[in-house]
Amino acid sequence: MGAPADNDTPLKQQLRGIIFGTNTTAGRYFDLILMVCIILSVGLILIDTIEPIHQAYGGVIRVAEWIFTIIFTIEYLVRLYCSINRWHYARSFFGVVDLVSILPSYLALIFPGANFALAIRILRLFRIFRVLKLLRYLSEGNILLRAMVHSSRKIFIFFFSVSLIVLVLSVIMYVIEGPQNGFSSIPKAMYWTIVTITTVGYGDITPQTSLGQAIAAATMLIGYSILAIPTGILTAEISQEMGRERDLRKCSNCGHKGHDKNASYCNHCGTELESLELEIEQKD
Amino acid sequence: MGAPADNDTPLKQQLRGIIFGTNTTAGRYFDLILMVCIILSVGLILIDTIEPIHQAYGGVIRVAEWIFTIIFTIEYLVRLYCSINRWHYARSFFGVVDLVSILPSYLALIFPGANFALAIRILRLFRIFRVLKLLRYLSEGNILLRAMVHSSRKIFIFFFSVSLIVLVLSVIMYVIEGPQNGFSSIPKAMYWTIVTITTVGYGDITPQTSLGQAIAAATMLIGYSILAIPTGILTAEISQEMGRERDLRKCSNCGHKGHDKNASYCNHCGTELESLELEIEQKD
Amino acid sequence: MGAPADNDTPLKQQLRGIIFGTNTTAGRYFDLILMVCIILSVGLILIDTIEPIHQAYGGVIRVAEWIFTIIFTIEYLVRLYCSINRWHYARSFFGVVDLVSILPSYLALIFPGANFALAIRILRLFRIFRVLKLLRYLSEGNILLRAMVHSSRKIFIFFFSVSLIVLVLSVIMYVIEGPQNGFSSIPKAMYWTIVTITTVGYGDITPQTSLGQAIAAATMLIGYSILAIPTGILTAEISQEMGRERDLRKCSNCGHKGHDKNASYCNHCGTELESLELEIEQKD
Amino acid sequence: MGAPADNDTPLKQQLRGIIFGTNTTAGRYFDLILMVCIILSVGLILIDTIEPIHQAYGGVIRVAEWIFTIIFTIEYLVRLYCSINRWHYARSFFGVVDLVSILPSYLALIFPGANFALAIRILRLFRIFRVLKLLRYLSEGNILLRAMVHSSRKIFIFFFSVSLIVLVLSVIMYVIEGPQNGFSSIPKAMYWTIVTITTVGYGDITPQTSLGQAIAAATMLIGYSILAIPTGILTAEISQEMGRERDLRKCSNCGHKGHDKNASYCNHCGTELESLELEIEQKD
Repeated sequence: MGAPADNDTPLKQQLRGIIFGTNTTAGRYFDLILMVCIILSVGLILIDTIEPIHQAYGGVIRVAEWIFTIIFTIEYLVRLYCSINRWHYARSFFGVVDLVSILPSYLALIFPGANFALAIRILRLFRIFRVLKLLRYLSEGNILLRAMVHSSRKIFIFFFSVSLIVLVLSVIMYVIEGPQNGFSSIPKAMYWTIVTITTVGYGDITPQTSLGQAIAAATMLIGYSILAIPTGILTAEISQEMGRERDLRKCSNCGHKGHDKNASYCNHCGTELESLELEIEQKD
Repeated sequence: MGAPADNDTPLKQQLRGIIFGTNTTAGRYFDLILMVCIILSVGLILIDTIEPIHQAYGGVIRVAEWIFTIIFTIEYLVRLYCSINRWHYARSFFGVVDLVSILPSYLALIFPGANFALAIRILRLFRIFRVLKLLRYLSEGNILLRAMVHSSRKIFIFFFSVSLIVLVLSVIMYVIEGPQNGFSSIPKAMYWTIVTITTVGYGDITPQTSLGQAIAAATMLIGYSILAIPTGILTAEISQEMGRERDLRKCSNCGHKGHDKNASYCNHCGTELESLELEIEQKD
Repeated sequence: MGAPADNDTPLKQQLRGIIFGTNTTAGRYFDLILMVCIILSVGLILIDTIEPIHQAYGGVIRVAEWIFTIIFTIEYLVRLYCSINRWHYARSFFGVVDLVSILPSYLALIFPGANFALAIRILRLFRIFRVLKLLRYLSEGNILLRAMVHSSRKIFIFFFSVSLIVLVLSVIMYVIEGPQNGFSSIPKAMYWTIVTITTVGYGDITPQTSLGQAIAAATMLIGYSILAIPTGILTAEISQEMGRERDLRKCSNCGHKGHDKNASYCNHCGTELESLELEIEQKD
Repeated sequence: MGAPADNDTPLKQQLRGIIFGTNTTAGRYFDLILMVCIILSVGLILIDTIEPIHQAYGGVIRVAEWIFTIIFTIEYLVRLYCSINRWHYARSFFGVVDLVSILPSYLALIFPGANFALAIRILRLFRIFRVLKLLRYLSEGNILLRAMVHSSRKIFIFFFSVSLIVLVLSVIMYVIEGPQNGFSSIPKAMYWTIVTITTVGYGDITPQTSLGQAIAAATMLIGYSILAIPTGILTAEISQEMGRERDLRKCSNCGHKGHDKNASYCNHCGTELESLELEIEQKD
């Protein structure tokens, strides 16, 4: 099914440079136009759910949605045409996202049921995930991601501990307040405990008894304190990641490390530093 | 009462490896199955408190609970049988948790009162604490715990200061707003102050007078700022703990410290590093 | 239009020292008096919007506002008179702010419409931005600003990711809860998601279904956790900025860095350190 | 008025050791008993404001309050008697607190008005500040305090900027939502903005228009982000303070610094370290 790489025409190569590339002017313009189209089409779907707007401009929005669907269909077909390995693109994360974001409009033609149409309209929202592509080119995102991956076990332990605290507090509140004060079941009490411990505090369920209010106050203080834990974990990791990034630039003369990202000379012996791009590529 | 260690049969040893051990395949499977049972039995107790579910599936849930009770009873008896010092296990934290988690079902047979049954059902929730056992094997948990233990005095001083601020603000709000606006007593005003200073903000009691609203705004800003304090304390401690963990790995050749957890060679002189497990055991 | 610099009389120079300068006693007093006038005039505009106060003291407030308008008019004219390049001042940020803060009162004389008057009164609030001038003299503000500028790309990625999470959660909640529970459109559901994910939690829209409450709880926990990310980014940046500031003071004898801001002697070799002011000026 | 130090009898010295001292057994017991009395007397005042309790146990509480008043009166007189410089003690912060905490009960005898009695009862709450004395002996408190003092200018700039943001957002919301949606004046809109920006979110005033809800969402995101700033400032300062504390312990042999608080030997050359108490005293 996948097209072999040998029939790679110049047209295909050029299209690939525009559609998949990001370092040519044409590629950057294409990305920009595509992003505007994505945001506009998502914006249309959002405001179409506002009843008065749907009734007044429903027709216009439907036409605009079809225009975007056709644009995205052409884009999908061109991507499929010019990719080196078509099957590989079609199965890739962004290939699936590209397909899912155009299918719903066509499905709505075939199955014109009202409720089904909503589900289809929602599917179209998947198109927004394309924007995630841009994250790839931002090195700062990598630091955050690496910090999160490194701290994931600590964060997991944190959430595990919070779950236990929530469970115990919910049972206590369920016993104290009971169904007559809105704590109609332990899952409902758990909802209240999470609302309280995360300091959201809707106020749709509130303790009415004095003892319940005392335990609620304790719950708030617990939530207020443990908030410090994931922050502490992530801050320590981000600090370390930032330090590591600085350490990437080593002077070739004296071996001194820890230069700023935009430094050109070693701050210890004055030797010119290699450019950052080179260093990072060497690392990979 | 405690069994002497000399009549230690191979069967006992094998059972001990499965039930108490965590580094054999059988031991790991046993832990996994037990954890699933614990979570399912706790889940049952939770959803049984939802009235419609209790009325529709009450019978099924009772049967399932008895099955779990029998499983946990067998587990408790086997643990008691194969432990080197039975009395020591029975008195240990997890020994008591294991007993407490099966007793309620049997007590419900003897005392069939409706209200009493609820108390018994809640006792069964203590079984969840067994999951805490798993925390032992996660070294990351130790860092968090050590950071918390190290910062406990600072956190205590913080909470002590917060209590004083809460007390003073509550008295002021009680005097300004008074019982006619929901601040019916100083303890009630303290509940409001904690709801506000932790930024929970239920909205069940809100200031009505202009002066009250001004002081409420000040309370919020205070709460917003002091939240930074426990976070700062814990972050500084976690950073230090993480640095200390890195320092555990010292090069045997040049004495250089601060290697990554998964580094194999000294990043200063290239000598192969001893494995982390060894180093940590040496420390203990 | 701009006045040439050659007709620079001693009177102009003296006025310039008082009005624009900040290091003479007269200049400092002028700044202080001006700031009090700004705060008082803004305070008047604020309390004038309280209906009972407007009805009782409306006349007094109008008179006081005219006094402030005249003071600010004189200030503007003197500034214009004594600035080296009048056109340059008039077009500068603070020149425009100064003009905008006096114009509304005169416009209210010409167009005496009630609704228009409100718009004019609001324009007067722009005068508060003058206070921003004082920020310039606080070096601590620079650290915060630099930390924010340095972390702006990371913060942008963070907000971009949060927007995507908000969008997805809003669509899910809109489908689950629907218009009958207050989630009347996706934009309204987005409002709810932001209220929840930032842990504000008004409680004007709350989930009513069990599934909705479960997803709401997940939303809160997500919001609770990701709060750690911008804090971690900024803390790491501020730490680095503070370290950089300490590094500015280098011993001229041994080259040792990292002295305290108010240190007079090198903490390594005891040589007297150059004053901080000199060092910073050298840097600029 | 102040007593000269020459008539310093052994009785006075002994009393001073018990009452003002904290390193003798008797002094520690005295502090403990006093603290229990303070907490109990404050607790009484708090629960006496609960109407049902006041009606049922009002008489008992009044008697208990008189007992505490007499205890604190004796304590005050003994403190005055045995202090080296009586006038100095009487004018000191804690001297005034001690007097203020006993006066109200006596004033209530002279002026028996009901409303006045409340004011007097509240004055008695000042006694709680005595507990602050204990903070002095906790070195951890000093770190927090120093970190806060060091960061006070940054925190001030932060609050100043937040005030400007709050003012601008309040004016915008007042114009958009107006009195018909609860934003009856700019000060009221400022109350709402603070409730929102600190993520408290009572929900007593909520935006009703679409534009208002969009700006409210922006306000929440601003509040959510700027929360990171004071946390970042304080964390960086606390980290620095903790590093400085570690640096206090310098090896007398090799000059190596950065030993743990409870280390006994230099971790660089093995020389026994001087005790921490000595080092800290030397510093002061």
